[in-house]
Amino acid sequence: MADIKKIGILTGGGDCPGLNAVIRAVVFKAGEYGWQVLGVKYGWKGMLNADAIPLTRNDVKDILPLGGTILKTSRTNPYKVEGGEAKVLENAKKMGIDCLVAVGGEDTLGVANKLTKAGLRCVGVPKTIDNDLGATDYTFGYQTAVQIASDAMDRLHTTAKSHDRVLVCEVMGRHAGWMTVDAGMSASAHWIYTPEAKGSVEDCCKMLKERYARGDKYGIVAVAEGAEFSDLDVKAASQTTDSFGHVKLGGVAETLAKEIEKRTGLETRHVVLGHTQRGGSPLAYDRILGTRLGNKAAEMIKNGQFAMMASLRGENVEAVPIEEAVKTLKTVPPQYYDVAKTFFG
Amino acid sequence: MADIKKIGILTGGGDCPGLNAVIRAVVFKAGEYGWQVLGVKYGWKGMLNADAIPLTRNDVKDILPLGGTILKTSRTNPYKVEGGEAKVLENAKKMGIDCLVAVGGEDTLGVANKLTKAGLRCVGVPKTIDNDLGATDYTFGYQTAVQIASDAMDRLHTTAKSHDRVLVCEVMGRHAGWMTVDAGMSASAHWIYTPEAKGSVEDCCKMLKERYARGDKYGIVAVAEGAEFSDLDVKAASQTTDSFGHVKLGGVAETLAKEIEKRTGLETRHVVLGHTQRGGSPLAYDRILGTRLGNKAAEMIKNGQFAMMASLRGENVEAVPIEEAVKTLKTVPPQYYDVAKTFFG
Amino acid sequence: MADIKKIGILTGGGDCPGLNAVIRAVVFKAGEYGWQVLGVKYGWKGMLNADAIPLTRNDVKDILPLGGTILKTSRTNPYKVEGGEAKVLENAKKMGIDCLVAVGGEDTLGVANKLTKAGLRCVGVPKTIDNDLGATDYTFGYQTAVQIASDAMDRLHTTAKSHDRVLVCEVMGRHAGWMTVDAGMSASAHWIYTPEAKGSVEDCCKMLKERYARGDKYGIVAVAEGAEFSDLDVKAASQTTDSFGHVKLGGVAETLAKEIEKRTGLETRHVVLGHTQRGGSPLAYDRILGTRLGNKAAEMIKNGQFAMMASLRGENVEAVPIEEAVKTLKTVPPQYYDVAKTFFG
Amino acid sequence: MADIKKIGILTGGGDCPGLNAVIRAVVFKAGEYGWQVLGVKYGWKGMLNADAIPLTRNDVKDILPLGGTILKTSRTNPYKVEGGEAKVLENAKKMGIDCLVAVGGEDTLGVANKLTKAGLRCVGVPKTIDNDLGATDYTFGYQTAVQIASDAMDRLHTTAKSHDRVLVCEVMGRHAGWMTVDAGMSASAHWIYTPEAKGSVEDCCKMLKERYARGDKYGIVAVAEGAEFSDLDVKAASQTTDSFGHVKLGGVAETLAKEIEKRTGLETRHVVLGHTQRGGSPLAYDRILGTRLGNKAAEMIKNGQFAMMASLRGENVEAVPIEEAVKTLKTVPPQYYDVAKTFFG
Repeated sequence: MADIKKIGILTGGGDCPGLNAVIRAVVFKAGEYGWQVLGVKYGWKGMLNADAIPLTRNDVKDILPLGGTILKTSRTNPYKVEGGEAKVLENAKKMGIDCLVAVGGEDTLGVANKLTKAGLRCVGVPKTIDNDLGATDYTFGYQTAVQIASDAMDRLHTTAKSHDRVLVCEVMGRHAGWMTVDAGMSASAHWIYTPEAKGSVEDCCKMLKERYARGDKYGIVAVAEGAEFSDLDVKAASQTTDSFGHVKLGGVAETLAKEIEKRTGLETRHVVLGHTQRGGSPLAYDRILGTRLGNKAAEMIKNGQFAMMASLRGENVEAVPIEEAVKTLKTVPPQYYDVAKTFFG
Repeated sequence: MADIKKIGILTGGGDCPGLNAVIRAVVFKAGEYGWQVLGVKYGWKGMLNADAIPLTRNDVKDILPLGGTILKTSRTNPYKVEGGEAKVLENAKKMGIDCLVAVGGEDTLGVANKLTKAGLRCVGVPKTIDNDLGATDYTFGYQTAVQIASDAMDRLHTTAKSHDRVLVCEVMGRHAGWMTVDAGMSASAHWIYTPEAKGSVEDCCKMLKERYARGDKYGIVAVAEGAEFSDLDVKAASQTTDSFGHVKLGGVAETLAKEIEKRTGLETRHVVLGHTQRGGSPLAYDRILGTRLGNKAAEMIKNGQFAMMASLRGENVEAVPIEEAVKTLKTVPPQYYDVAKTFFG
Repeated sequence: MADIKKIGILTGGGDCPGLNAVIRAVVFKAGEYGWQVLGVKYGWKGMLNADAIPLTRNDVKDILPLGGTILKTSRTNPYKVEGGEAKVLENAKKMGIDCLVAVGGEDTLGVANKLTKAGLRCVGVPKTIDNDLGATDYTFGYQTAVQIASDAMDRLHTTAKSHDRVLVCEVMGRHAGWMTVDAGMSASAHWIYTPEAKGSVEDCCKMLKERYARGDKYGIVAVAEGAEFSDLDVKAASQTTDSFGHVKLGGVAETLAKEIEKRTGLETRHVVLGHTQRGGSPLAYDRILGTRLGNKAAEMIKNGQFAMMASLRGENVEAVPIEEAVKTLKTVPPQYYDVAKTFFG
Repeated sequence: MADIKKIGILTGGGDCPGLNAVIRAVVFKAGEYGWQVLGVKYGWKGMLNADAIPLTRNDVKDILPLGGTILKTSRTNPYKVEGGEAKVLENAKKMGIDCLVAVGGEDTLGVANKLTKAGLRCVGVPKTIDNDLGATDYTFGYQTAVQIASDAMDRLHTTAKSHDRVLVCEVMGRHAGWMTVDAGMSASAHWIYTPEAKGSVEDCCKMLKERYARGDKYGIVAVAEGAEFSDLDVKAASQTTDSFGHVKLGGVAETLAKEIEKRTGLETRHVVLGHTQRGGSPLAYDRILGTRLGNKAAEMIKNGQFAMMASLRGENVEAVPIEEAVKTLKTVPPQYYDVAKTFFG
C-alpha cells in the first residue's frame, strides 16, 4: 500500500482485557511499515470530534499488561447521529487518516463496514467479552473473564461446603451463555443456566435435593445474567428491569436464589460478579491473541483487505469479511452445553 | 497435662480461609503429645448432637491449601438452647473429650469461656474475617480476604478508566471498616466509607468532580457493607433491610452509587463482592498464622492455660484470656483511617 | 458399542495440568454410558503390572482443580520391554478391559496405536506441555504453563529495571519453542531464542546496547531450554550435558547470560523456571479443554473410533487418526516467530 | 518543622515489592505538609552524582501496584568511596535537600545514620526481602516473596506426586531462613533447611524413605540458598562459589538433590526460584505496609525524629533508632523453626 502514511485506531463498546495488546501491536507493526499512527479517543465519538493523539512505539511499549484501553471507549454510533457519517469522513480527511483500525463488537464493526463503502477504508478487530461474535473462534479478553469467574466460583465451593449452603453465581452474558458454561464447567458448577438452554428450575431443585440426600450438602449454580427458564419468569418475579427493559444486573441471580430456597427449603445465597469480570491485566492467552490480531490488522491494511476483520481460525489468524462476523449472534450450541451437563448433579 | 488423652476441636461462625490450617496444626501437635483428636462437626451444634469424627495426621495432612473448614460450621450457641450447657457437658463426657479447642469469633469464644467455668476445659483460637476481635493483632483469613477485594478493585480501575465511570465497590465489614480501609488503601481507592468514620457523601462528590475537572475522569469508591454516612440515611433510602434489620447485602453500594450519580451527574455503577471474599485457598500469610495458632492451642492445653486463646502479638503468638478478646469490638482507629485519607482524591 | 462393559484409562509421560480433567470427564461420561472404569497406574507400566484401581464418579468429582495426575505416570514403553506387548494384552484380558483411553504424548499414543492393531482397542487423548504434537491446535496444560512463565517474566521486568540489569529466563521446550515464544510475547521479552530459529547472540547484544543507549537500561531475554544459536555452541561452552547428551537444564540460560555479559559488559543474570512450570492447578482453559477431550474420548469408544485421538480443531473437538499426530513434531512456523520479532528491542 | 522545604528520597540495595508504595506515600504526605520532594536515583550513588528528579503527586499516583522502584537502586556506599561523605553533604546542599528519607537495608540505613551525625538529617524505612533486620516485626516485600515461593512449591507437589519424585526447592535467604521456613510451612514442605538450623541430610533421607515406605511416594524439600548442614559440606561438594566466596545461586539445591538421590536411590530433582521471587506487583499486605511506613517517615521528619526509622511493631508503626535495627541480624529463632518441624515427614 504505497499510499498509506498515517492510520488511525479506535476502540468501541465495552472494555475488555487485551485491547491494549491490539493497540500496541498495531503501533509496532505500523512502525515497521513506516506509517504514523493516530489513537482516536472514545471510539467513534473521537472521529465525530476529531479527538485523537499520536501514538509512537514509546507510548505503547509498556501497555501490554494493562487492562482496559488507553484510548478509552464509548458506545457512540455515528450512524445514529445526524450527519454522523459525513462528519467522520470529513474529520478523517482533516486528521490525515488514510485508513482506520476499528476494534469492537457487532456495532463498532458494522460502522467500519459501512464507512469503508462510504470511502473511509477500515479494517476490523473483533472484540466481545461475551465470545458471541460469528466468524472467529475466540475473542481476546474472554479467557481472562472466564478465569476470573472460575476463580470466584472455586472460592464459592469452599464457603458453600462449610455452611451446607446453595450459592447461585451470576456471570456475564446477556444474549449468549458462553462465559457461564465455560466458567461453570471449569469450576465444577452443579447446574448451569444460559439464555439459550432455558432450563428448568424444578430440575435443578430436584438435583440439589438429591445432592443433600446423598451427603453432598452444598450446591453451586452458575447463571448467565440473561438466562431464561422454562418454569420461571424472572421479569415478572423480579419486577426490576433497567431502561432497556432488561432484567437489572443481579436480578436473575437474586430471583433464582429465592426460588430455589422456596422450593427446596435449602439455605440459598446469591453472588453477582458484575463489573469485576472485565477489568484487570489480561492472561497470556489474551495478550497473545490481541497481539496477533493487531499484527494482522496492520498486515491487512498493507494488503488492502478492507471491510475485513482479523479472525482466529484454529491455529491461524485470517482475514474474514466483517459482514460474516456481524450477521449472526454466536450462541452456545446444544452439543457444547451437553458436555457441561454431563457434570451436573 | 498427664490427664489428657483425647481432645476435641470445632469451628464456629462464618467460614474463613485458614481454618483448615488450624485444624491440621492441632492434629499434628496433638500427635506429638500422644493425644487423640475428635473433629466436632458444625461448631457447637456438633457438641449438642455428639456429632464428631476422629482425626488423624493422615486425615489432615493435605488440607492446608483448602479454603473453608473440613469440620463445617454453624452459628448454633448452646447457651441459646434450652439445656444446652448440660447437653454439651454430658456429650463431652460421653465422647471422652478431655479438652476442647474452639475456633471462632466473639460468640464461639464466649461459649468456650463459659463452658470452661462449667467444667469443660476449653482453649480458643480467634477467627474473624472482619479483623474486629480485640486482644490479637490480626486474625487468619483476613489477609486473604483483603487480597481478593484488592484484586477486584484493581480490576475496577481499568474498566472505570476506559469508560469515564465511577465504580462503587462494597466490601465485607458490618461493624468495622478494616477490610474496606485496607483493600481501599491497597487498591488506590479515591474514597473509603466505613461504619466508624460516617463520612460525607457530599465531600466524595466534590472530590469526584475535581478529579474529572483535572482530567482524571474516573473514580473508585470503596464502601463497607455496614458503612454509615453523615448526610445519607441508607436504610431510609434503600428500603431494603434483612431479617436482622440490617441493610441487605449490596444495599449500601447500590444506594450510594445512585446518590453519587444523582448529585454529580457522573455515570456511576456498583459492585458487591459478597460471598466471593471469604472462600478459596488461603494466602501463605494465613496458612502460616493458622498453623502457628493451632500449634499454640495444643501447647496451651499442655500448659493448662484454659479459657485462654492463642493470639498474635507482634512477631509472637501468646496466650491471652478469652475475656479480653471478646469484651470489645476492635474498630478502625481514626489515625489509621487518616493514613488512607491522605490518598483520597 | 454394545460390547463395552469396562474401560481403562492411563496417563503417560510428563505430568501436565489438566490430566485430572480428562480422567474425570472419561469417568463421568462412562457412567452415563453404563460402563465401569479402571484407572491404570503409572501409564503403560500399570498395564505391564496389572496395577489399577476402580474409578467411580465419587472418586473423581473433586479432582478438576488438581494439578498432576491422580493415576501417576511413567515413561515405560511396553514395546521396549521384552514380551511387553503380550503382557499388556494378557493383563487387559485379565482385568476385563474392553477398551483403553491412553492420555499422553507421541510415545504413549504410538503405543496405543500399535496395541489397537494387536487387538487391544485404544483411543488417545493428546498431551504435551510443549504443544509440539501434530494434528491438534492446542494441548491442555500448555496455557497454564505459558501463564506461569509469563507471570515469572512479568516479575523479572521490575527487578531488571530497578537494577539496570539484563535477565535471561530459560523456559521449557527441548525441541520446539512454542512456550518460549508465547510466554516471551506475553511478557514483552526483548529477545526470544528457540530451537527452530537458531538466532544470533550478536544481534541480541546489539539490541541490548541500543536499549541502554536510548535510556531503556534493562533487558529481558527468553530462551528455550533447547535453543540453539547461529554464533554460540552451547554444548561446547557449557560442558554440561545430561545422560541423553542434552545440555543440562539451565545450561543454556547460564551460558547465554555469561556470553551476553562478556560481549556487552552489561550486568546479566539468569533464571531457570524448570519444574515450577508444569505443576499446579490448571487454568480454566485447560480444565475445559481436558474435560472436552475426555468427553470426546468416551464418545469415540462408543462410536468405535479406535486408534484415533480427540483433537481440538478450531472451536471443535474431533477424532483424528493417532498416526497423523505422532508422525511429525509441530514446531513454531517462521511467520509465528516473526510476530514476536516485531516487538524485539 | 518550620525549616523543611524540600526533602529527598532514595532506595538502596536489592529491589523489593513495596518500594514504590513507600515512595508514593512520602510524596503524598509531603504534599500535605507543603514540602517538595526530590527522587534521588540509584540509592546513594544518586547523592554522589546529584542525580535526582522532582516527584509530584501526579508522578506517583499510579505506582502503588508496580514492583521494583521507580527511583532505581544500587549498592553504592558513600563511606566506601574516597571523599564520599563530603560529596553527599555538598550535593544535598546544592540540591536544596533539607532532609532525606533512606529506604534500604542494614547498609543503606547505616549510611543514613552516619550522615545524620555528619549534618544531613535522615530518616529511614527498613527494607529487606529476607526479613532479617532487627527492630521491626516484618518488612514490606517479604510477604509477596513468601507467596511466590509458596505458590511455586504448591505446584511442585503435584508434579512430584505424579512422578514419585523428590523435589528440592531453593529459596532466597543467604544469612537467615525466614523465607524458606515460612514458604516451606505454607506449602507443606516435608523438610526445611536453613542457615541457622544446620540440619542433617541423613535425617531427611530417613524421613523420605519412611514416606515412600508408607505409600507417600514423593517429597518436597525446601532449602535456603545459604543453608548449611551438619553432615554435608556444600562448598566442598559443589566446588562452585561466587566472587564473595559464597556458594553460587543454585549450588545448594543442586548439591543437596544429588546427595539425597545418592543416599536414598530416590529420583530427585532440584529447582532454584532465584530472581523470580523479588519482582512483580506487591500483595495488599506489602502495599499497605509500605504505605504506612512511608507515611510515618514523613511524619518523623515533621517531628524531628532523625536517625530513626519507621518500624512495624504489632499493629502499630513506630519510630525506632536506626542503630537498634542494624546492629543485629534477625535470624529464625529455634522455637519458630520448631513449629515448622512439627510438620516434617
